[in-house]
Amino acid sequence: MSQAAESSGRAVVLLSGGLDSATCLALARAHGFACHTLALSYGQRHDAELRAARRLSGVLGAVEHKQVNIDLDGMGGSALTDASIEVPDEPGEGIPVTYVPARNTLMLSVALGWAEILDADQIFIGVNAVDYSGYPDCRPEYIESFQAMANLATRAAVQQGRRITIQAPLVRLSKAQIIERGLALGVDYAETVSCYRADRQGRACGRCDACRFRRAGFEDAGRPDPTRYQTPA
Amino acid sequence: MSQAAESSGRAVVLLSGGLDSATCLALARAHGFACHTLALSYGQRHDAELRAARRLSGVLGAVEHKQVNIDLDGMGGSALTDASIEVPDEPGEGIPVTYVPARNTLMLSVALGWAEILDADQIFIGVNAVDYSGYPDCRPEYIESFQAMANLATRAAVQQGRRITIQAPLVRLSKAQIIERGLALGVDYAETVSCYRADRQGRACGRCDACRFRRAGFEDAGRPDPTRYQTPA
Repeated sequence: MSQAAESSGRAVVLLSGGLDSATCLALARAHGFACHTLALSYGQRHDAELRAARRLSGVLGAVEHKQVNIDLDGMGGSALTDASIEVPDEPGEGIPVTYVPARNTLMLSVALGWAEILDADQIFIGVNAVDYSGYPDCRPEYIESFQAMANLATRAAVQQGRRITIQAPLVRLSKAQIIERGLALGVDYAETVSCYRADRQGRACGRCDACRFRRAGFEDAGRPDPTRYQTPA
Repeated sequence: MSQAAESSGRAVVLLSGGLDSATCLALARAHGFACHTLALSYGQRHDAELRAARRLSGVLGAVEHKQVNIDLDGMGGSALTDASIEVPDEPGEGIPVTYVPARNTLMLSVALGWAEILDADQIFIGVNAVDYSGYPDCRPEYIESFQAMANLATRAAVQQGRRITIQAPLVRLSKAQIIERGLALGVDYAETVSCYRADRQGRACGRCDACRFRRAGFEDAGRPDPTRYQTPA
């Protein structure tokens, strides 16, 4: 975060409403950034996570929250956006059906445009490549290549030499380490929704990939799991 | 277009309804691709160009046309999306106020996701860095950096080694050369809308940057300008 000292102090923080992005927001706040949080509604099965994002933005002290809607529903291609594809209980081989094609590229693109408009020089994204589902757009090399592209894409960078830095502070942390950081910063994880099959109240299924990684994280950290489950675990 | 021989023969073509993207679609069709055209509605001042895109998709023989809506209206930051910023008559210095932050990054991101879902291995975009307004995301080095990022971003590329190639066949052509190519392929440029201030019928103002480049292109090519203007030129 070398540019912080000379920055405008503004950051766009991608906030999905899950455990990782909430921690990411808490870290950005702890570094003193004025945070503008951004959630993308792209036809997720449930909007419990979008409501959680809005709530967390306020609780964790962001300046404002924006939800951008994009109608990818008709495109299909993922268990998270296509009702005809089941979210599996058991992890399979390779990248799972919950992968949403080019999702992080799309979210970072919207964030890039908004950062340029806001005169923000940081974008925070809570991607993680340790305890994760193997999505290609969560890996450090992907983030680095997006950074290289962003340096050529904006008027801010090309005309004014003002680059927008992509910060992925969780990318090399284990889920347990992420939870430890967040708890130290006062994040209430009961407020976050990670589950791919959360119900309308935001309660988790306890069985999908996202639930498994999350539950194991609390176990590895030796901390009580505050997640609200649909049926007691 | 080296991958064409081993490809599925499918391409996603970004189609704004303007002169360049219509030519790009005609070129992709001439190369034998089954074209799936994509227009992004992001709060443009007029939807005449969106209607032109839908019409051109059919006329030029695409398989299907999809319009994706994203509500960036509230973000401002450009004369094309913010009614409080005037579209200028005269070109100023540097990148003009008609620049939409990260627009091509956003459009290419949506195209990338759709290409992966469709199992298409080409994306066509009609950017041009010769007779243009100096937008950073129209330059060849920008397209190359998006390509490098895309190679790391998708399941198709990472798991199956199936890369999606970004084709920008107009990037180094003059406006006159683009018009010559399109006329040779039967494009009716009266159907295209380039103007930043087109009226509801798609008639052009004749004075904005986009109109100037377009009009000069027909003059340089020694071809009659079929553009429908709001007042006779």
